[in-house]
Amino acid sequence: MRPTPCAPHPGRLCSPDVCPSAPASTPPTGTPGTPWRRQGEAGRARKCPSAAAPTRALPLEPGGHALCGPAAYTPQEIVGGIPDPEHLLPELLKGAGYASKIVGKWHLGHRPQFHPLKHGFDEWFGSPNCHFGPYDNRARPNIPVYRDWEMVGRFYEEFPINLKTGESNLTQIYLQEALDFIKRQQAARRPFFLYWAIDATHAPVYASRAFLGTSQRGRYGDAVREIDDSVGRIVGLLRDLKIAGNTFVFFTSDNGAALVSAPKQGGSNGPFLCGKQTTFEGGMREPAIAWWPGHIPAGQVSHQLGSVMDLFTTSLSLAGLEPPSDRAIDGLDLLPAMLQGRLTERPIFYYRGNTLMAATLGQYKAHFWTWTNSWEEFRQGVDFCPGQNVSGVTTHSQEEHTKLPLIFHLGRDPGERFPLSFASTEYLDALRKITLVVQQHQESLVPGQPQLNVCNPAVMNWAPPGCEKLGKCLTPPESVPEKCSWPH
Amino acid sequence: MRPTPCAPHPGRLCSPDVCPSAPASTPPTGTPGTPWRRQGEAGRARKCPSAAAPTRALPLEPGGHALCGPAAYTPQEIVGGIPDPEHLLPELLKGAGYASKIVGKWHLGHRPQFHPLKHGFDEWFGSPNCHFGPYDNRARPNIPVYRDWEMVGRFYEEFPINLKTGESNLTQIYLQEALDFIKRQQAARRPFFLYWAIDATHAPVYASRAFLGTSQRGRYGDAVREIDDSVGRIVGLLRDLKIAGNTFVFFTSDNGAALVSAPKQGGSNGPFLCGKQTTFEGGMREPAIAWWPGHIPAGQVSHQLGSVMDLFTTSLSLAGLEPPSDRAIDGLDLLPAMLQGRLTERPIFYYRGNTLMAATLGQYKAHFWTWTNSWEEFRQGVDFCPGQNVSGVTTHSQEEHTKLPLIFHLGRDPGERFPLSFASTEYLDALRKITLVVQQHQESLVPGQPQLNVCNPAVMNWAPPGCEKLGKCLTPPESVPEKCSWPH
Repeated sequence: MRPTPCAPHPGRLCSPDVCPSAPASTPPTGTPGTPWRRQGEAGRARKCPSAAAPTRALPLEPGGHALCGPAAYTPQEIVGGIPDPEHLLPELLKGAGYASKIVGKWHLGHRPQFHPLKHGFDEWFGSPNCHFGPYDNRARPNIPVYRDWEMVGRFYEEFPINLKTGESNLTQIYLQEALDFIKRQQAARRPFFLYWAIDATHAPVYASRAFLGTSQRGRYGDAVREIDDSVGRIVGLLRDLKIAGNTFVFFTSDNGAALVSAPKQGGSNGPFLCGKQTTFEGGMREPAIAWWPGHIPAGQVSHQLGSVMDLFTTSLSLAGLEPPSDRAIDGLDLLPAMLQGRLTERPIFYYRGNTLMAATLGQYKAHFWTWTNSWEEFRQGVDFCPGQNVSGVTTHSQEEHTKLPLIFHLGRDPGERFPLSFASTEYLDALRKITLVVQQHQESLVPGQPQLNVCNPAVMNWAPPGCEKLGKCLTPPESVPEKCSWPH
Repeated sequence: MRPTPCAPHPGRLCSPDVCPSAPASTPPTGTPGTPWRRQGEAGRARKCPSAAAPTRALPLEPGGHALCGPAAYTPQEIVGGIPDPEHLLPELLKGAGYASKIVGKWHLGHRPQFHPLKHGFDEWFGSPNCHFGPYDNRARPNIPVYRDWEMVGRFYEEFPINLKTGESNLTQIYLQEALDFIKRQQAARRPFFLYWAIDATHAPVYASRAFLGTSQRGRYGDAVREIDDSVGRIVGLLRDLKIAGNTFVFFTSDNGAALVSAPKQGGSNGPFLCGKQTTFEGGMREPAIAWWPGHIPAGQVSHQLGSVMDLFTTSLSLAGLEPPSDRAIDGLDLLPAMLQGRLTERPIFYYRGNTLMAATLGQYKAHFWTWTNSWEEFRQGVDFCPGQNVSGVTTHSQEEHTKLPLIFHLGRDPGERFPLSFASTEYLDALRKITLVVQQHQESLVPGQPQLNVCNPAVMNWAPPGCEKLGKCLTPPESVPEKCSWPH
């Protein structure tokens, strides 16, 4: 969850690896390669790898996708990050006087030039990377937690996570940061953009003591309950401050649930196939809830197919701003769908690295490649589709279907179990339509600068700014730039 | 769907093979054998085969389960049916002055002694068997449709179902029957029990022209939309007649969705394993919605584990009647759960024929046997678990685990993918508790009279009462009693 309420106009809520409910779409991981940009001068945001880091850029980025690339997640060794030419949402919202804060995980590069405060945010409380660990601070440093420009501690040290019990009060800390920020902006009568990028449902899954053991769904359920409670408190504060009517709140996730963490720390993707790390619906569909009292009727369901990229365009629209005109923008303004019930048919492209794995148009989804993970990884027990096996679909080798894609009707067959017959009229009609939008899409891409190919142990979080004051600087090893390794 | 609204006190709604939402439980099919009864004189209703017929008895029966047996479904050849000593719900409701009607599928035996009007119903419009067909009326007769004591036509003849387009107006006919019954009872100020046993979501799935093609979910979705619309009209009539406040409406299904009918005519069981015909959660969980304005708050969710058997006890409770005291009753009165939020822990036993396949207690489910269907049937393309394969769980041979059952925690693992480790404390604790309730359960059973073992082509619906008037009597073949064949 990374809720991001804003006032007086836009505001938003998101979340990581949470079970799906409404269609949304982000893309997967995989084959190393080069990101693409649209012919002409500007970047065209498309679906990036499904793991956390690259898709994280999507709600913030205009259309550029400089982080698209292989990417399982961006490890500490990663040399790249969000490039300066990309205009992130908070940079643009400054034009309408917005104060912006990110609370939680950034994951768009942890080196100084990628710092969120260099990319439009005014405040940050959180971490540049996942809360994996604990590390020994010798081969690998623990991940730092920042307040604005400087680190204020490290996970498993000043910010404990008990891997055995799952106890951590991080969500409570993130909640207080959110409430405090909102109160301050309201007191100053400043419009604000809060990107609440909490990560309790990302393995290692955690919850604070008050929530541990309170759900019937194990640790994952406890974490969801704490997030739910926290969202309730944020929304409650907006009501108390009487700014609910002009604050737009959006809740979503950057992936479907990570089934690889099941059963102890995994969620469920309901009827959908597989989970995070794949381009099947279980990895791509996410919950999506919009809240704006007085504008969006409660309990309304929209069948608009959305993408996290749309939050960029939608937020600008809420703030009365135009998207940048010097580049192509893929995000759709969702306000017509949310406010007037107008539906827009649009294709969604599912990438793994630079490989276009699949595309949807209407209810049809065509798979040009199928792959879950390698036999080697699978045999070691890493399973993105536990208990699921669709012959010729959940393949452990990278199977090409570019000439004759597998096509599913997601309405009749949300679980992607029954490919349409190649000989059917329905297949041929769907293929013709999808081929056309894929051609248009591919013709619009030009190569960009890869950001996720080079790794180097020397760039890890050894000595982040502020480490001296805390006496927590570590000595980096020798610089050894290497090609990053992406196991899936 | 077989909604059954009643007034002034009880009333109910049900449905067949509809996707699950709330926990409920009914049981599966399988090994031929002898039904059991409780030590003493009376029947103890337990979970019967998951296919339609035996579980159909459960909401109507007190506790007897004379139809328990092997049973995939009760074919026309079946010699048995609901025995006279069983007191069905409408028989008992007569004691409180209720008029009772069944609309739709009966499926508790089609021979004269099993007729619903001999078992407490005052009116019937519908069929004694599934709407399979069309048949040639030589090897096998088309299924008759009855109004009360006499047939008024046959499926595919007077009551057409277009297998190619899926068009049939049967739900509309069933709806009119329901509305008409309610209006008449209200005019006469009689309390009523309506068992609305519609079957549009049972293959061959059908919908009327106004609904065909209106959903994004194929023919199954169209059927669900028509059912939904019809339930809305029934509930609307109750409001219009100003009897909503004293009519209890319950909607549920007798199985999870039949995945064997996917993708053209199948539903989805969400996160649950497999579908109808199995004892996995996908076959056993069903939607369950209770409606009673002014008594049950709208939007409330109950975590009470229920069973269709509970509708028997609950309905008696609503009518101010006591269950029969001369026999054991397994059904729980759900009113404390629905009205006061009181939760009762209770075991649920999952049978296939006479084999206790599994049992749940709290969040734990123990599988004593695992089986989906035979390799032989599976190799012919009959798949109850399409796209799902849990090693050692979704077995195609009948695997015994009675000494060391597979135990799942359905909260953390609703999809039954990760058996608990045999060595874990959690496993041993759960095993101890479940073993105890299974022992108590088994000690309470005594053999009953099997009803589903003998089949005979001569007993099929050749010449149902009323056929002479219509000129639709067919000549039965020679009587050849045989042991019924149950393929799964």
